[in-house]
Amino acid sequence: MVEEHALPTLEQDGHEDVYSLSAKRLAAILFAVERGDRDALIEEIEPLHAADIADLLEQVNAYDRRRLILLYGHDFDGDILSELDEGVREDVISVLHPQVLAEAVRDLESDDVVDLVEDLEGDAQEAVLASLHASDRVAVEKSLAYPEFSAGRMMQREVVMGAEHWTVGHAIDFMREAQELPEDFYHMVLVDPRLRPVGHVTLGKILGAPRGQKLNELMEPGFRTFSVDESEADVAYAFNQYHMISAPVVDEAGRLVGVITIDDAMNVLDEEHEEDILRLAGVGEGSLADRVFETVRARIPWLAVNLVTAILASLVIAQFEATISQFVALAVLMPIVASMGGNAGTQSLTVAVRAIATRDLTGANVWRVIRREVLVGLANGLVFAVIMGVVGVLWFGSPALGMVIAASMVINLVIAGLAGVGVPVLLERLGIDPALASGAFVTTVTDVVGFFAFLGLAAMVLL
Amino acid sequence: MVEEHALPTLEQDGHEDVYSLSAKRLAAILFAVERGDRDALIEEIEPLHAADIADLLEQVNAYDRRRLILLYGHDFDGDILSELDEGVREDVISVLHPQVLAEAVRDLESDDVVDLVEDLEGDAQEAVLASLHASDRVAVEKSLAYPEFSAGRMMQREVVMGAEHWTVGHAIDFMREAQELPEDFYHMVLVDPRLRPVGHVTLGKILGAPRGQKLNELMEPGFRTFSVDESEADVAYAFNQYHMISAPVVDEAGRLVGVITIDDAMNVLDEEHEEDILRLAGVGEGSLADRVFETVRARIPWLAVNLVTAILASLVIAQFEATISQFVALAVLMPIVASMGGNAGTQSLTVAVRAIATRDLTGANVWRVIRREVLVGLANGLVFAVIMGVVGVLWFGSPALGMVIAASMVINLVIAGLAGVGVPVLLERLGIDPALASGAFVTTVTDVVGFFAFLGLAAMVLL
Repeated sequence: MVEEHALPTLEQDGHEDVYSLSAKRLAAILFAVERGDRDALIEEIEPLHAADIADLLEQVNAYDRRRLILLYGHDFDGDILSELDEGVREDVISVLHPQVLAEAVRDLESDDVVDLVEDLEGDAQEAVLASLHASDRVAVEKSLAYPEFSAGRMMQREVVMGAEHWTVGHAIDFMREAQELPEDFYHMVLVDPRLRPVGHVTLGKILGAPRGQKLNELMEPGFRTFSVDESEADVAYAFNQYHMISAPVVDEAGRLVGVITIDDAMNVLDEEHEEDILRLAGVGEGSLADRVFETVRARIPWLAVNLVTAILASLVIAQFEATISQFVALAVLMPIVASMGGNAGTQSLTVAVRAIATRDLTGANVWRVIRREVLVGLANGLVFAVIMGVVGVLWFGSPALGMVIAASMVINLVIAGLAGVGVPVLLERLGIDPALASGAFVTTVTDVVGFFAFLGLAAMVLL
Repeated sequence: MVEEHALPTLEQDGHEDVYSLSAKRLAAILFAVERGDRDALIEEIEPLHAADIADLLEQVNAYDRRRLILLYGHDFDGDILSELDEGVREDVISVLHPQVLAEAVRDLESDDVVDLVEDLEGDAQEAVLASLHASDRVAVEKSLAYPEFSAGRMMQREVVMGAEHWTVGHAIDFMREAQELPEDFYHMVLVDPRLRPVGHVTLGKILGAPRGQKLNELMEPGFRTFSVDESEADVAYAFNQYHMISAPVVDEAGRLVGVITIDDAMNVLDEEHEEDILRLAGVGEGSLADRVFETVRARIPWLAVNLVTAILASLVIAQFEATISQFVALAVLMPIVASMGGNAGTQSLTVAVRAIATRDLTGANVWRVIRREVLVGLANGLVFAVIMGVVGVLWFGSPALGMVIAASMVINLVIAGLAGVGVPVLLERLGIDPALASGAFVTTVTDVVGFFAFLGLAAMVLL
């Protein structure tokens, strides 16, 4: 409420079935907060998944957020914290009563606590760790000892394992007698006497087999383990490529120390997806929850890079001031050539950056792909050369000008195809993320080539 | 081999552990194909996952691909077909011996066969369907009767279900006696006598409980079902938002007809991710396997849209020909203002398009986000106004020109922030995918406003 004018239909045309946080519910929640009506608030929040409650806290403004949390009180669930964006999360933790925070965190699996704690500042981190039971605290601190973005950070330490010689009956009895099984697990990991994993069996196979069946006869093909220091990006890639649902993590000695499940991998894939898109657009990092100052700081570097490349292009134009002052039509038409090159280059580079990320563009086919993009540039160049040639003649009545713009269009679109693939491939080989830097390089190339070809040809032909 | 010059280090710095298709192995495979050495080929391919073999087939050229498939022969696995990109898939199916194809397809789950068949042309589709057993064929044809991109197409029909009054013992006995259980399943779905799902129990809970325990006491909280005609995008969104691992699908009468698992949802998320990125770059669809002609055809529409918007911008410039012919410096500097606006607009729009896709930008916070983007545009505009003002004075020695470029920079960056959020929000409300069309609109706005503000102010101040 307050100063927000809602566009209530925006988010959910047709999504009511899958998304529980409707605009109507949001309004009811804010109204309950406004009145300080705790019962009404609980009634509206009760049916929501923790992920929806997190969305709710991200969507309302900071003032309503604080009032909501205070009114919600001790029902606050730890899973909500796990689902929150970093920026909002710190804000929420600072508002939560220490005891509510302690209770919320105590129910989480170890990997979720790690996920929560690793992004927090010193004070907030200490508050969360202090609220854990001693044994959980040790487990979390052990995980925090692994490097950031590693499998060790990603894994949960709660593992269901059995001896390699066990039968289905052993496995079932073991699980029935276990004090507490993890919330989500999909395999029993089989280990040798030194705790080294030798394979794993799906729970479905265990349930479908007679009690006397040996577990090692039911093991899944294509069993993989990850080392604790494997990067989370590689783990997520493997989960996606090989359709894995869970996989054991081993230490340097090859001993089982944890397990990574599909939800952890999906989190990482989601983050990488976000990063890819934002980097391609020259937005370093960024979420809607960031403040103006943080957003400005994140975006300025990319705009600064763009300013430098734009000035470079201007320097090219400056070389032809004499030509332009004689034929002002050149100033009118030149942005078209540059803009078409920039667009074609962005098309090629986006396809190339994606293909590198999904490992479809490799040493085996890079030359074929470059050849294809150049041919595509040539074909598109010819199509638009004809169109712009005609436009040039009709608009300015000069066949020579039409020819100049046509020829420079072909040149720039061929170069766009070449740079669009070549730049990301080169950056990748130099160890630079192509999503991050390709855009600036490619548009610099197409701007400079576009202006130079157009104005250069004009200077030769028209003067 | 043949005409490709490999850049062998491109794809795998540090990925050897997770990615089995190394450049070395690829070379060995092509060498075996070259020599027609079947044993060597099998030995190299044997350890690869179907997803890797599919990557292999996508990376080699069409000639090597055919020779490889013929040499590989009857070991060809159906899963490889499921992993292939559409374009390459048709090519592979046309090369496969009909009997090899029949055997390959027969082992797949029903949802994978549907996935395979739905993209095939008439003849190839008939060949695959004919190779199925009669009962499987009926199942696949039933799924194909559901609309494309619906939950009905996505689901597999093999479901493990039990009666709502069953105990853990009933469930275990049922699964042990089942002829065949699905390859991957994670829950037993509980149904009422009319086959309507009432909840589901994880296999872990079944394994951890005593035989006498009632299943309906073990049901998961937050149980969701999908209707057969739910869109696959909404299903995938729900899987991701609510961390689901599998969910039942029901027909119009609410009866259980299938189940969707996390791997199906991840496929859809992957495709949407791809689509988002490609659409933002104005590449309709596109994969590396497409031929030149297909690629040209896919990209031309977006370049044509860009041409129209570029010409619009040129028409603005044309209004100021007289001014430019007096001050050629304007022609040199004007692309900088337009380019900065285009970049800032792209930044805002990318964040907005992402936030709409992840449903973080809703009616509840749209005005706050617009206000933020305008403030960010104002702040960035002031920063770059100062820089460009100084550059303008130093370069051209004209304080008036410096003031003009500074003022137009502020105007264009504010407009860029406004258009960057406003355009995708409006498109979304009109039912148009903002990822698809926002870019063209936003850069049109920033080009037109940039040129108009800069040249218009110049005409007023300098003349």
